[in-house]
Amino acid sequence: MGSSEIRIVPITCLPEIQAGDQLAALIERALVDCGLRIRDSDILVLAQKVVSKAEGRLVPLAAIEPSRRAREWASEHGRDARVIELVFREAKQLIRAEQGVIITETRHGFICANAGIDTSNVPPGCALLLPEDPDASAERLRAELGLRLGHDLGVIISDTFGRPWREGLVNVALGVAGLSPVTDYRGTPDAFGKCLKMTVIATADELAAAAELVMGKANRVPAVLIRGFEHEPAQGSGKELLRRADRDLFR
Amino acid sequence: MGSSEIRIVPITCLPEIQAGDQLAALIERALVDCGLRIRDSDILVLAQKVVSKAEGRLVPLAAIEPSRRAREWASEHGRDARVIELVFREAKQLIRAEQGVIITETRHGFICANAGIDTSNVPPGCALLLPEDPDASAERLRAELGLRLGHDLGVIISDTFGRPWREGLVNVALGVAGLSPVTDYRGTPDAFGKCLKMTVIATADELAAAAELVMGKANRVPAVLIRGFEHEPAQGSGKELLRRADRDLFR
Repeated sequence: MGSSEIRIVPITCLPEIQAGDQLAALIERALVDCGLRIRDSDILVLAQKVVSKAEGRLVPLAAIEPSRRAREWASEHGRDARVIELVFREAKQLIRAEQGVIITETRHGFICANAGIDTSNVPPGCALLLPEDPDASAERLRAELGLRLGHDLGVIISDTFGRPWREGLVNVALGVAGLSPVTDYRGTPDAFGKCLKMTVIATADELAAAAELVMGKANRVPAVLIRGFEHEPAQGSGKELLRRADRDLFR
Repeated sequence: MGSSEIRIVPITCLPEIQAGDQLAALIERALVDCGLRIRDSDILVLAQKVVSKAEGRLVPLAAIEPSRRAREWASEHGRDARVIELVFREAKQLIRAEQGVIITETRHGFICANAGIDTSNVPPGCALLLPEDPDASAERLRAELGLRLGHDLGVIISDTFGRPWREGLVNVALGVAGLSPVTDYRGTPDAFGKCLKMTVIATADELAAAAELVMGKANRVPAVLIRGFEHEPAQGSGKELLRRADRDLFR
């Protein structure tokens, strides 16, 4: 295999994460247990779920008192009113609420189903919210892992989102640290010497998608190492991938 | 590195493709030149451009007579009227035409900018149309490569599309052969034993996205080998990834 290949390596040795866990320490140990040695410019992709769990974003549904609006919507669509209440609380805006699906803009600016709230792969009777600030979570992990491992990593916090027009979910990047979320070819020549005008690739989303391929069923592999992706270290931010409402034709 | 890792390997030895080229023969030679030996369940991702070029989908713009509607739209938005004419011809439906952007549903059912017509990485004065039937192209290549190489490959024909809500383009799967385009976890238990209800992952799109990471600037690497992705051989089809209009909240 060539030297310019990319490797997508599952980190299979993480325990089930609890609120308050030191994720960087657990990742360091899992890398050792899996026999993986980090190099500069490796990229770590983490499923949002483990970050949210470590940050205490698991909510017991018994503590949630649904509003009348949440109760009505839930009863109409056969959903749990307490989950719908959480969705309404976490949403900055409802984009669509049809066919039993609620598409929201979260307070972070992500447009996704159910404000990104998960009730699968969590303990019974609980719901899991997105991290408060995925970019800050990514940057904190990047800094801590840099100190522990002695190498500059990129960190991506990912989640699976649906999208218009196409069936199936794909992994996207919510939080990004240590690399630019895009590769911008504007102004560079194409294969025929013509200047490229429009080509900005959302590489952080593509890295997140690539990582999902080894995360597998039931999220048993919530951490993935990507080696060999050519990039320059950069501050980076997942927010750069959010299209401004006035530039968006589909809200 | 673990045995369950995925490798994304650029096939760097393909020549510039011309109309009528036998793509399977050129890929076979490129694999040899790159020192790559195919195994069963390897997946080949090909940029749509090389497939379209081999299939003679390059159109000299001098031969295109734009309609009055195309001339008006082009003049209003500073575009080439002959390209806009091609976009109108290739589109089954205009989804949006605002802010100088034309989002179309192509006759295949893809929703994308400019009916997928490219004017970059093509000879000057030309535009490149999508393949007539990307699934048929993928199946033909799968069958020919199977005979030549003696192994069952999956084949994905990919292109970079924009999407609502998020900045940047990502690679998606237009044509698929030899593998299912989705991984369907519905009915399987999550990590806590709860039945997953909604989880269908568009793995062909994630494989296409992963491949883009080594395709790079100016599409110099239009073919990528993916090794180690766990899947069962299946007929497969890119059409399965197209959401039916009546199930789509964003048209």
